[in-house]
Amino acid sequence: MLPTRILEKKRDGGRLSPDELAAFLRGYLEGGVAEYQMSAFLMAAFIRGLDSAELSVLLHETIESGARLRFAKDGPPAVDKHSTGGVGDKVSLVLAPLLAEAGLRVPMMSGRGLGHTGGTLDKLEAIPGFCVSVELDRFRAILREVGCAMIGQTKEIAPLDGRLYALRDVTGTVPSPALIAASIVSKKVAEGIGALVLDVKCGRGAFMTDREQARALARTMVDLAAAEGVRTSALLTAMDTPLGRTVGNALEVREAIDTLRGEGPADLREVTLALSAELHVSAGCAPHAEAAAAELGAILDSGTALERFVRLIEVQGGDPGVVDDPGRLPSAPVREPFRSPGSGWLDVHARKVGMASVELGAGRRRAEDAVDPRVGFEFHRTTGDEVAEGERLLTVHAADSASAATAGHRLADAIRLSPEPPAPQPLILERIA
Amino acid sequence: MLPTRILEKKRDGGRLSPDELAAFLRGYLEGGVAEYQMSAFLMAAFIRGLDSAELSVLLHETIESGARLRFAKDGPPAVDKHSTGGVGDKVSLVLAPLLAEAGLRVPMMSGRGLGHTGGTLDKLEAIPGFCVSVELDRFRAILREVGCAMIGQTKEIAPLDGRLYALRDVTGTVPSPALIAASIVSKKVAEGIGALVLDVKCGRGAFMTDREQARALARTMVDLAAAEGVRTSALLTAMDTPLGRTVGNALEVREAIDTLRGEGPADLREVTLALSAELHVSAGCAPHAEAAAAELGAILDSGTALERFVRLIEVQGGDPGVVDDPGRLPSAPVREPFRSPGSGWLDVHARKVGMASVELGAGRRRAEDAVDPRVGFEFHRTTGDEVAEGERLLTVHAADSASAATAGHRLADAIRLSPEPPAPQPLILERIA
Repeated sequence: MLPTRILEKKRDGGRLSPDELAAFLRGYLEGGVAEYQMSAFLMAAFIRGLDSAELSVLLHETIESGARLRFAKDGPPAVDKHSTGGVGDKVSLVLAPLLAEAGLRVPMMSGRGLGHTGGTLDKLEAIPGFCVSVELDRFRAILREVGCAMIGQTKEIAPLDGRLYALRDVTGTVPSPALIAASIVSKKVAEGIGALVLDVKCGRGAFMTDREQARALARTMVDLAAAEGVRTSALLTAMDTPLGRTVGNALEVREAIDTLRGEGPADLREVTLALSAELHVSAGCAPHAEAAAAELGAILDSGTALERFVRLIEVQGGDPGVVDDPGRLPSAPVREPFRSPGSGWLDVHARKVGMASVELGAGRRRAEDAVDPRVGFEFHRTTGDEVAEGERLLTVHAADSASAATAGHRLADAIRLSPEPPAPQPLILERIA
Repeated sequence: MLPTRILEKKRDGGRLSPDELAAFLRGYLEGGVAEYQMSAFLMAAFIRGLDSAELSVLLHETIESGARLRFAKDGPPAVDKHSTGGVGDKVSLVLAPLLAEAGLRVPMMSGRGLGHTGGTLDKLEAIPGFCVSVELDRFRAILREVGCAMIGQTKEIAPLDGRLYALRDVTGTVPSPALIAASIVSKKVAEGIGALVLDVKCGRGAFMTDREQARALARTMVDLAAAEGVRTSALLTAMDTPLGRTVGNALEVREAIDTLRGEGPADLREVTLALSAELHVSAGCAPHAEAAAAELGAILDSGTALERFVRLIEVQGGDPGVVDDPGRLPSAPVREPFRSPGSGWLDVHARKVGMASVELGAGRRRAEDAVDPRVGFEFHRTTGDEVAEGERLLTVHAADSASAATAGHRLADAIRLSPEPPAPQPLILERIA
């Protein structure tokens, strides 16, 4: 295998044979292909694309570069969810204990927030003591004990993906649908799951603002995962306005707890149940999504899923007292009301709210930044509500009054008031399987 | 300047502003842009292209990355020629002393052969003792003394080009017309010349087989060099059949000496005079090409250009005795005639002859290979000649009988006999200025 031949072929838009691409990727892991050759490859692959055969080779080699969990066939079905990232998206915190309570096994490895979207690990770490850095053996033990586990990517899983991602990050080759799809699916397949649901966010607060692009990404990922033997479906869900009523790590944990108690906001509950139902059906536990959603909704209302979450917090080193006493979560010293500048029907722009929350300290500008778990926004009114001038629309939770004031300016640009009520928009846009 | 922003812009086919591209290139020289970022840039630039404004920034930064020779305005005009590479192309060995004899200054930096084409440095090194590795100060002194100097690229000239070329070589990004043009022109401009002629070879033995592509490359280089203040023209010259009667380093030196004595083959003399005349006119020494060619032809016939070559050999450490006694040049132990397999009009395929000469040891398969100065082909008949079956067409000069036999097999595929005389083809195809 001559690396330059591979590069020339992809440069000119050719298709690499499975042997060629596999040899190139293995050469990179073993040192025969240099960083500067891989970065040239990534640029060529970004511009020229990878076809489905090439993608499945990339996926396979990525999975095989590390450990792959395997669960006993006679145990509970192992399932997981992946979201492409949104604002206020705390679905994972509800879904994992809910499905564990429903008898499934949820070996969930998540990421951190970057850009205007939040990350599950940052939210979990808002719980004092909660540890997301767990070795694979301990991960398996937690799963056996609680039925779900929520941790960060371990070094053992798909190390090729980690190296490629780091290189893409510094060479302007991140937002390639093909490379994104292979990256996401490789880690999920390596978790050893039998069923996967993808929450492909679409709208002005999502990375994919265009429905057609979101659909294509969903299709690619569903096909890739299915080819690796994982029963997979995708829901395209709306991300025009924040999901739920909170944005910010500790605030979102509170809202997830409310939802696990059967008391959360309707939109968060709807999206969580729709995604959970997909997995429940894929795992063979329900005949169809309606039945699954009804069963899972009943579990939420019973409060037993919250008990499962308490056990998870405890096992992963966190303070389970936060569930009954939210005052034990970190809280911001400054709370400022944000009042409506006029009257009319409210429209909240997810991406702008996400950017404002990053500026407040709830998210990261760069990967190495620390997040402030205390800060964020708590909405009292949301998109579609009719509001009066001077009414308190939300509370800003801030580290100091200066940042609260800055956030206020940002928010003024993130909300719109219109004289007419907006047409109601569906949350679940499309299903792809 | 964020390297990833630059990469994203070029990736998506955007045009970089002069500031952006200059900052990126300087960042690479200074270490702020990594090798893997530059290789991703080169791949994106290869696929998306560089427009003329971007190219002129690349050119300028490449020149400015190193030393730039400057000659006194009242001294002889400094001129140079560049060829895109052919088979049997020993024009430089004749042109440099010829123009020095005509009163110009020729600070010539050349390259080595790679692929099926030869290189001026390899030819010069066939002269025992001739040294092409010369420091800039010594280069200037030779120029003052002889009026011409023929050396390899020095480290001081356009070091950015050297680094970029090494990276392109290992990342499959060499044959980009834009990157080739900037690379060639940067080194010539840095020589401090006032006039440049480009010999853009076109035909089955050239890197450019297509006339349209050759014209576009010539156009790009002429415009680039002209924008840097160098009076530049290009000739597209035919490279379907080897130039002159010899292919191989020592054999080509002999043929160059014959031509400097006014006794060389007509095609070599014609191309050399046409290119030399371009420079003579550009330097303001003749009113038009015809007058220049007549004057320069007379110099060749007088033998004084050969005396100039003798002085050059002497000053660069070589054995000037080779001029009067070609037996002092390295010669091959095995000489085998290659006889015509039939009768008819002969057609010799330049690329196939070039490949056969590489296999014989006259050229390189890889940059680190050594060449054998002794070996090559000496044609007694050439394209357009009517030949009889069994007639000796050429002599193979080889290191041993085995390689001579292999070369014979290769040659059988490189010559064609046709029952009709071929239509005569011009040598000078087009002029671009």
